[in-house]
Amino acid sequence: MNKDPVSKNKEISISEFFNKNRHILGFESPQKSLFMIVKEAVDNSLDACEEFGILPSVTVQMEKVDQDEFKITVADNGPGIDRKEVANVFGKLLYGSRFHQLRQSRGQQGIGITAAVFYGQITTGKHALILTKKPEDDVTYRFEIGIDVKTNSGVVSSEDRQITEMDHGTSVTIWARGKYQEGKQSIMEYLRETAAVNPDMELTFTNPDGKTIRFPRTIDELPKKAVPIKPHPHGTEVGDLQFVISEAKDESISRVLQNSFSRVSSRVAEEILSLSGVEPDQKAGTLPLKDIKAIVEAFSRVKIMPPQTDCLSPLGIEYIRRGLRNVYEELRPSFYSKPVVRSPIVYKGNPMVVEAGLVYGGDLSPDEPIRIVRYANKVPLLYQQGACAVTKAISDMDWRSFGLEQRSGSGLPFGPMILLVHICGTKIPYTSESKEAIAQVPEIVEEIRQALRLSARSLRTFMRKRERRNKANEKYRLVAQIIPEISLKSGKILGVDPPDTSRTISRVVNVVLIRERIEKQSEDTYLVSGEVTNYTNEERSFTIHISPPAGKSDTEKIAVERLEPAESRPFSFTVKSELPYRETDFYVEGIDPVYVIGAEALPPDYQMKEISYEVEEP
Amino acid sequence: MNKDPVSKNKEISISEFFNKNRHILGFESPQKSLFMIVKEAVDNSLDACEEFGILPSVTVQMEKVDQDEFKITVADNGPGIDRKEVANVFGKLLYGSRFHQLRQSRGQQGIGITAAVFYGQITTGKHALILTKKPEDDVTYRFEIGIDVKTNSGVVSSEDRQITEMDHGTSVTIWARGKYQEGKQSIMEYLRETAAVNPDMELTFTNPDGKTIRFPRTIDELPKKAVPIKPHPHGTEVGDLQFVISEAKDESISRVLQNSFSRVSSRVAEEILSLSGVEPDQKAGTLPLKDIKAIVEAFSRVKIMPPQTDCLSPLGIEYIRRGLRNVYEELRPSFYSKPVVRSPIVYKGNPMVVEAGLVYGGDLSPDEPIRIVRYANKVPLLYQQGACAVTKAISDMDWRSFGLEQRSGSGLPFGPMILLVHICGTKIPYTSESKEAIAQVPEIVEEIRQALRLSARSLRTFMRKRERRNKANEKYRLVAQIIPEISLKSGKILGVDPPDTSRTISRVVNVVLIRERIEKQSEDTYLVSGEVTNYTNEERSFTIHISPPAGKSDTEKIAVERLEPAESRPFSFTVKSELPYRETDFYVEGIDPVYVIGAEALPPDYQMKEISYEVEEP
Repeated sequence: MNKDPVSKNKEISISEFFNKNRHILGFESPQKSLFMIVKEAVDNSLDACEEFGILPSVTVQMEKVDQDEFKITVADNGPGIDRKEVANVFGKLLYGSRFHQLRQSRGQQGIGITAAVFYGQITTGKHALILTKKPEDDVTYRFEIGIDVKTNSGVVSSEDRQITEMDHGTSVTIWARGKYQEGKQSIMEYLRETAAVNPDMELTFTNPDGKTIRFPRTIDELPKKAVPIKPHPHGTEVGDLQFVISEAKDESISRVLQNSFSRVSSRVAEEILSLSGVEPDQKAGTLPLKDIKAIVEAFSRVKIMPPQTDCLSPLGIEYIRRGLRNVYEELRPSFYSKPVVRSPIVYKGNPMVVEAGLVYGGDLSPDEPIRIVRYANKVPLLYQQGACAVTKAISDMDWRSFGLEQRSGSGLPFGPMILLVHICGTKIPYTSESKEAIAQVPEIVEEIRQALRLSARSLRTFMRKRERRNKANEKYRLVAQIIPEISLKSGKILGVDPPDTSRTISRVVNVVLIRERIEKQSEDTYLVSGEVTNYTNEERSFTIHISPPAGKSDTEKIAVERLEPAESRPFSFTVKSELPYRETDFYVEGIDPVYVIGAEALPPDYQMKEISYEVEEP
Repeated sequence: MNKDPVSKNKEISISEFFNKNRHILGFESPQKSLFMIVKEAVDNSLDACEEFGILPSVTVQMEKVDQDEFKITVADNGPGIDRKEVANVFGKLLYGSRFHQLRQSRGQQGIGITAAVFYGQITTGKHALILTKKPEDDVTYRFEIGIDVKTNSGVVSSEDRQITEMDHGTSVTIWARGKYQEGKQSIMEYLRETAAVNPDMELTFTNPDGKTIRFPRTIDELPKKAVPIKPHPHGTEVGDLQFVISEAKDESISRVLQNSFSRVSSRVAEEILSLSGVEPDQKAGTLPLKDIKAIVEAFSRVKIMPPQTDCLSPLGIEYIRRGLRNVYEELRPSFYSKPVVRSPIVYKGNPMVVEAGLVYGGDLSPDEPIRIVRYANKVPLLYQQGACAVTKAISDMDWRSFGLEQRSGSGLPFGPMILLVHICGTKIPYTSESKEAIAQVPEIVEEIRQALRLSARSLRTFMRKRERRNKANEKYRLVAQIIPEISLKSGKILGVDPPDTSRTISRVVNVVLIRERIEKQSEDTYLVSGEVTNYTNEERSFTIHISPPAGKSDTEKIAVERLEPAESRPFSFTVKSELPYRETDFYVEGIDPVYVIGAEALPPDYQMKEISYEVEEP
């Protein structure tokens, strides 16, 4: 045995650790590093504004200082930071306000912005410049902040006061080595996707070439505020309860349960304790391990209400729709699914909501893997797609029956589709501190799969409909073209006037034809006009139900009465829709649908409001 | 503006952080958690044995204690742990001996085993049991260790001494909630793949059903020991140099450079300092930022030797070959590539070596994505494949020209192939603390791609050869079957004896045919016998070069002289090969190779030892 290596065990400061493992914080390449700095600062601005009920105005400015050095400034109109907190907020890793709170927010760990300051310091030797003003402050505070790696603490290299025009807000300037690129996984893409689901934000971005891009505010209303909650008994481990108890030694266990957990009333506490054979009055601190275990076990056997969901702020159907439209409308997709918003699930005591939406067709390439747009707590995830629970859920699903191409029924499918998935929760299990992918926790993957299945089902309906319609239209087109031509030619040969062919068409085609034309009248109003033609041999009376796939029409149905063979009847109605309107879904009643082109049989569960799409609202 | 939310900024202990983010440490599901505990303990055992020059003997024992509680014991014959260190090693996150050393090792961060103890405590409330004895100790120390989450420190709940049979070593027992499964991504798979590349280890595993599996030691020799080195100037950032300087204020900058970096001689230091306009005698502590920046910039402009590579311990060609054979021989692959060991590269001052090998065909399914076997510092990576630099390098490569199926030339290819990639380095940038995937750093991805390209090139040679051989064989088979039959039938019809057809075959086929049969004679000896037949119309003289794709033959070439049309000549030789031997590569010289079936043209650069494979040795 070799004895020379002396084991030099030593404590490692969290800053030293992250200095050696910068890639874990997302700083693994010069391009990605600039991206991370902008992202962390903007996420912080949006969190601060949301928490304090401010409609966010954010500016991002990038300047090239040197060959590979950039100056990045992110300024907001947020609540400002207490001057005594500045050094810690920007200079100490693992320091923050949101870690101990259960509430949906972009930041949680107290790592992000400090990591950005840290990276700037390591690569350029320069400290970050912070300007901040709270509404009640008379002056703006100006700090230069660095990080002491050995002790993981903020270093204030200068502090100053100045009069600025700022009403309230914070501005962070970081000098960092990096590389600026546009295109995929870029700062621009992050900002655009952020704007897509944060329509209450206005954002101005000046890139290093001095070009300014503005994302205007499109909604003057704050999103629903997320309220902090207490942890829920479900998902509590023995060690968690031990810890809670160690904090409150002298209180009775019944009190501790009621005070420390959400949804534990005195009645529920009693039930839990009676099941676990523990006296409600017993001092929490005196409980032996066996009792603590019994209580944790009882948690799962007692009926406890699911956690409140006001700690969450999902996007909702309207925001997803807008987001998809704002970002992808230029691709003219032929199908927008109605967004799916799932009911909350509880993962380790934390509520979580999965939302999904998809667009299909249009100018999207059918020869590439589908595009996945992932959001977690309203932040776009642009990196680490392969590691993400969302990708896993997509890859595990067989998409072939939805008209997509997929080798052997697993893996990323190919086809002209964009899938948007948003996951929000009080605690999102990211795979690393850079928060780029959601860990592949089986329960979460399964929940995403459910949302995808619902979205995809509406896609299947669309694709089937389109296929049937295309077939029928093709048949009609052929007949309606060929018969008049035969008639014309025969007439010529025989030297007689060609006979009226519409009755002949009727006999051959034997269909009722519904045709529509769509005209945009204003931003959200479309005039739909068309006619019904009876190409059958009998007089027909029936009802056409009007079902817009997006928006709402002013007419619910058209009654067609005594339509003679070869007779046409015009119709028109108006549709209000925020999404571009391309086609109405028509359903017929009172006629055998096999005779009808341009409409489907009325589904047995048809209702004007909810059409063929399956949606779960929270 | 909403003023009620009082910002409660607070410091977060690293234990609290990891408690909330257990999935970052790999504890995201009950099954994975048991896996992590075994993995962290075994990795530690192997590191300790390697460092102290001990041939490792490890036992892993799992017992089911309860519905979902397991008792996991991992014991080794390592150097033991100083009793004063035990509480910190097992109870304090970010505490260890390898963090501040640049040397290849499995563990680096001082997180793994503490995380395992931590997870056990949280899920069962029980502390871990540690037995340890150093060779010089008279007794074995027995500890029960827990973790204080608030302060991130080890808690000793009991300490004892006992007489055991242990000579030296450490045994860790952890009680934890989890789920035991075999199959993909299991403890069994981890142990099997670990054994495959650590043939100096003997390992005994008892699963929860009491079944014992033994992985015997197959090499009685320690792998090359990795020696610690100093950081290399390449990859040093301004902040890193600032930090180095802050540690050594009064020394001259020339001294500091020579003492703190590897490969900086006094001459190199002088060159760096003259380039950056800094006096060599200047006290390091007095240098302004601008000078420090100039020095860092000069680092990349001065020629500095690459870092020593004795801090690394790559597997090497032989171990990769053995590893592939030991684990995959049951699939009877038809092709083993000669392993590729790349020259070291330097990433951020840290040397790193990429190695690769592949097997193809046999019983592997052609309808599934290829299998990727990833190792980092000799530890198999079973999770997070999608996030890994290895997967990225594979997906970015166009595999279609290598005979694999790949939609649009990117993404994971499909086909009957297993790719083994090993990356070793003094600092592997894992994507998270659970060390399951290597970050997609552009330089590393590119280096892996180079290794893959070399491996794949030998695959292409094999596939082309096989295809040509198959075609020619098919032609020969047809002719050699049909002509005698025609002769027989014609003879019958004409009532004459069928004529000898071999000359006719010669005329039609016009080839020289080399056929071989392989017979296994002992564990590593194969007798190859066969014959050369001249199915052309001329007398032929030529040389056959014998080139075994694995192993070594006792004969280098066969001289074939004056082989008459329709004449056969037998040959035989012996091949020694550790890998299963299935087929010889024959090359011909002195005959136009288009006339030859069963051999290829002699490559211009042919040499007996290195055949057609491209290999870089370190």
